[in-house]
Amino acid sequence: MKSYSPKGLKTSDLQTILQNTVMPRPIAFASTIDKEGNPNLSPFSFFNAFSSNPPILIFSPARKGTDGSLKDTYFNAKETKEVVINMVSNSMVEQMSLASTAYVKGVNEFEKAGFTMLPSEEVKAYRVAESPVQFECKIIEIKELGNNPGAGNLVICEVLKIHILNEAYDEKGNIDPFLLDLVGRMGGPYYIKTTQEGLFKIPKPIGSIAMGIDALPEYIRISPYLTGTELARLAGLEKLPDPTGIQPTKENFIHAKSLIADGKIVEAFTFLY
Amino acid sequence: MKSYSPKGLKTSDLQTILQNTVMPRPIAFASTIDKEGNPNLSPFSFFNAFSSNPPILIFSPARKGTDGSLKDTYFNAKETKEVVINMVSNSMVEQMSLASTAYVKGVNEFEKAGFTMLPSEEVKAYRVAESPVQFECKIIEIKELGNNPGAGNLVICEVLKIHILNEAYDEKGNIDPFLLDLVGRMGGPYYIKTTQEGLFKIPKPIGSIAMGIDALPEYIRISPYLTGTELARLAGLEKLPDPTGIQPTKENFIHAKSLIADGKIVEAFTFLY
Repeated sequence: MKSYSPKGLKTSDLQTILQNTVMPRPIAFASTIDKEGNPNLSPFSFFNAFSSNPPILIFSPARKGTDGSLKDTYFNAKETKEVVINMVSNSMVEQMSLASTAYVKGVNEFEKAGFTMLPSEEVKAYRVAESPVQFECKIIEIKELGNNPGAGNLVICEVLKIHILNEAYDEKGNIDPFLLDLVGRMGGPYYIKTTQEGLFKIPKPIGSIAMGIDALPEYIRISPYLTGTELARLAGLEKLPDPTGIQPTKENFIHAKSLIADGKIVEAFTFLY
Repeated sequence: MKSYSPKGLKTSDLQTILQNTVMPRPIAFASTIDKEGNPNLSPFSFFNAFSSNPPILIFSPARKGTDGSLKDTYFNAKETKEVVINMVSNSMVEQMSLASTAYVKGVNEFEKAGFTMLPSEEVKAYRVAESPVQFECKIIEIKELGNNPGAGNLVICEVLKIHILNEAYDEKGNIDPFLLDLVGRMGGPYYIKTTQEGLFKIPKPIGSIAMGIDALPEYIRISPYLTGTELARLAGLEKLPDPTGIQPTKENFIHAKSLIADGKIVEAFTFLY
């Protein structure tokens, strides 16, 4: 592996490494106003949810890596203690990218990026009408992580109201990730969207404890025929089934692999154990 | 839109909403040890980078939504002030899911999930040898967001050392998202992986300021033929090109659309303006 000590790296190189390795990142499209009521809109991907009770979202309008300057979002957050965090769908993302341009203070990024200012119910900052998920928040604390260029500022937000697009729900009333169609941030110029090829499911057995890979017989664990993923699926059962006395030949391992791929775990064991 | 006040929701419902709307989330596969040296390994998706100088990662081993209990990762972090955050690649994710099972204290999830304990250089906690990115961290603060069931705990980590798989770099020495092959967390049982279909690029003009959608002539801005994304691409130029005097007919808009799709923005304008 390549190993790096942050102390030996330029801030810009370290930032590039973090952006290319901590991913995919959700995007907070943060809408604020200054004390005169001028709107500001800017995206941040150093962002996530961190708590459900209280409901807390945190994003970081960091100091610029070059000169340590701060963004309008930071100043507005500090002045007004309010923000609307809008999630970004695929149909909005190129407009969002326009809003990330470094416009001078006072420029309304809603207009620059062609978004509609929707009044909020609990705060003065506007919602992005085109966004499928809008969180109206009060800012309970801004925690500064330093004063150097590249230092983050944790804007700790308590959610007061959540708005979700009606069309993002399936017929059972659950939020459908394809209908919501959010994008995430990757490194450099890259983003990721939700596709049939990209989305996958790992079913979690409810109320049962997986036996674990260490509970599998050694000849299965060290077999050259099975991947870690296949071992994980076998080890997801609560315990080993009764042994069948079968010989673990290469052919039987190959049979077992295709049964595992089909989700037939108990049947797969009959070729292995 | 459907609107919710967090105060009117059960914690479990609020948690479901946050997990289904704040996404995709990066995954911290957190390796800790207790003061006796017993290893623990558990995944958390309330996680992200927040600062590059100092280099800060934060994850939240939250209180359980049902009974408010805390996880071993929280106790170990508090006791030892150290953690290794391992990123999760597609080939590891089903094994990782095994490690998220609620094993009793003292069980080594490295063994249960079939991962290899790799000694760290700066901390006592082990790295996951199979992980393509490993951050050795000291914990500078644990900030508790409450005491109720569902309350988050911000484990604020300063990165001491970063290890990245050699094979994740392309021939130019840049980290390649396909070679790294990380997965993100979505709602419910869903994860997202990096695919050719899902990954896309939004080029950002360096050193130039986009004119913005508000600088486009109104008949272009309100045209029924162009989407917000197409307007954003037109508005990405620094200024309007010289007008050609062309009539903005439906046919010309259709021509322009296909040029925009090909990235030929200046040419597209010759059919519009």
